[in-house]
Amino acid sequence: MLNQKNHNELSNSFFLGIDADDTLWENEAWFYKIQDRFFELMSHWSEPYETNSALLENERSSIPDYGYGVTSFIRSMIITAIQISNGEIETKDISQIVLWGDELINAPVELLPDVEETLRELSNNYHLLLITKGDVLHQRAKVTKSGLSDFFWNIEVVGEKDSEIYAMLLNRYGINPEMFVMIGNSVASDILPVLNIGAKAIHVPHHTTWELEIPDPKELERFDFPIAKSISEVPGILSGWNE
Amino acid sequence: MLNQKNHNELSNSFFLGIDADDTLWENEAWFYKIQDRFFELMSHWSEPYETNSALLENERSSIPDYGYGVTSFIRSMIITAIQISNGEIETKDISQIVLWGDELINAPVELLPDVEETLRELSNNYHLLLITKGDVLHQRAKVTKSGLSDFFWNIEVVGEKDSEIYAMLLNRYGINPEMFVMIGNSVASDILPVLNIGAKAIHVPHHTTWELEIPDPKELERFDFPIAKSISEVPGILSGWNE
Repeated sequence: MLNQKNHNELSNSFFLGIDADDTLWENEAWFYKIQDRFFELMSHWSEPYETNSALLENERSSIPDYGYGVTSFIRSMIITAIQISNGEIETKDISQIVLWGDELINAPVELLPDVEETLRELSNNYHLLLITKGDVLHQRAKVTKSGLSDFFWNIEVVGEKDSEIYAMLLNRYGINPEMFVMIGNSVASDILPVLNIGAKAIHVPHHTTWELEIPDPKELERFDFPIAKSISEVPGILSGWNE
Repeated sequence: MLNQKNHNELSNSFFLGIDADDTLWENEAWFYKIQDRFFELMSHWSEPYETNSALLENERSSIPDYGYGVTSFIRSMIITAIQISNGEIETKDISQIVLWGDELINAPVELLPDVEETLRELSNNYHLLLITKGDVLHQRAKVTKSGLSDFFWNIEVVGEKDSEIYAMLLNRYGINPEMFVMIGNSVASDILPVLNIGAKAIHVPHHTTWELEIPDPKELERFDFPIAKSISEVPGILSGWNE
């Protein structure tokens, strides 16, 4: 199932951690689409910005126990809907929210530009470790649907992306932090916790960033890291580091 | 965070996979407790055996996408409640079901008899790999709460326990199937898929088995594996294999 390349075959010894959602394929766009329908559904009781802020609050407080996946999102919408409507929402609308979850689970996996060519090139030179957070079955299913599985040496689905989890993963594979580079679109999840443990990171921004993924500007000031306009710039940045 | 023992320090070379829920601590009992309340809640519309069969059917069809965790269970109860009541169920009852999820997430982790002593003994002689399915955050939180983390060499939370996943894990750690023994309470999840890839397994039955974990009797006939009355019998069985 996994493409276990012999370490000796690879010309470079960096291990690359690669984020998936909104780094390799569109993800947030699907959530926003459903969120817009939710705002519409709730518009009888509240304005979109109020619904959004109540939903965000429920999402934020759910993360420690329920994480970042579709199921957590659906649960937060159900709670928010009952709260905002003072229990007036009809059960057919609750069923509708549950079905939106199925729609998210079954959404197509649309690769972002240059992803396939870049991963093909990188996988010839580095060990690629896909590191993604969310529901384990759904995240694995997306990797399979993406057609990118064979480029990865290993796939890790984690509940949270903090320094402790990155340290645990490097420990698991016996990777020295100096030889690890994380590549991803979220400064809060893919960059800062990685720099914090003495590894490197390359930021590949996405056109949208979920409010709960926006980093604390104070923490940002402490760090300096390269920003790639597209994932296709990553091989060049890595080559610079190898020289 | 993880207790990375040097392989050379260990006198035996077996790697032990150890299931968590209902092998190390009570789990199903908490689900049954909530399920009984759900049957009571639905008793206005249907008999407990009918509610149970509708719930099981929704759980079964949710597994491929939503897995085995608390969130999947809560989602299945919400769907079942709306179905059985023909949408008459009140939103306050839906909120109640959501709260039951929080109760499951926060349930205490009660170790089964002899678990701590046995794991202490086994961890002195083997690499222990905890392999559990469910929601990644919740499963990891339970390991932490259990106080058993330090006995484990690594912890793996998977979405499903089939032969493909076990083969992927052995590949990840470079473990030869002949040197791997899985220990757990579910014949369908912990025993048969492991025997199928040429590894060994020891069944430690729990006093209850969820209906969706009961194996196909035909498949059972093909295999012969030891059954331990208690986890405390596991070290003796392993010693016999090492002689």
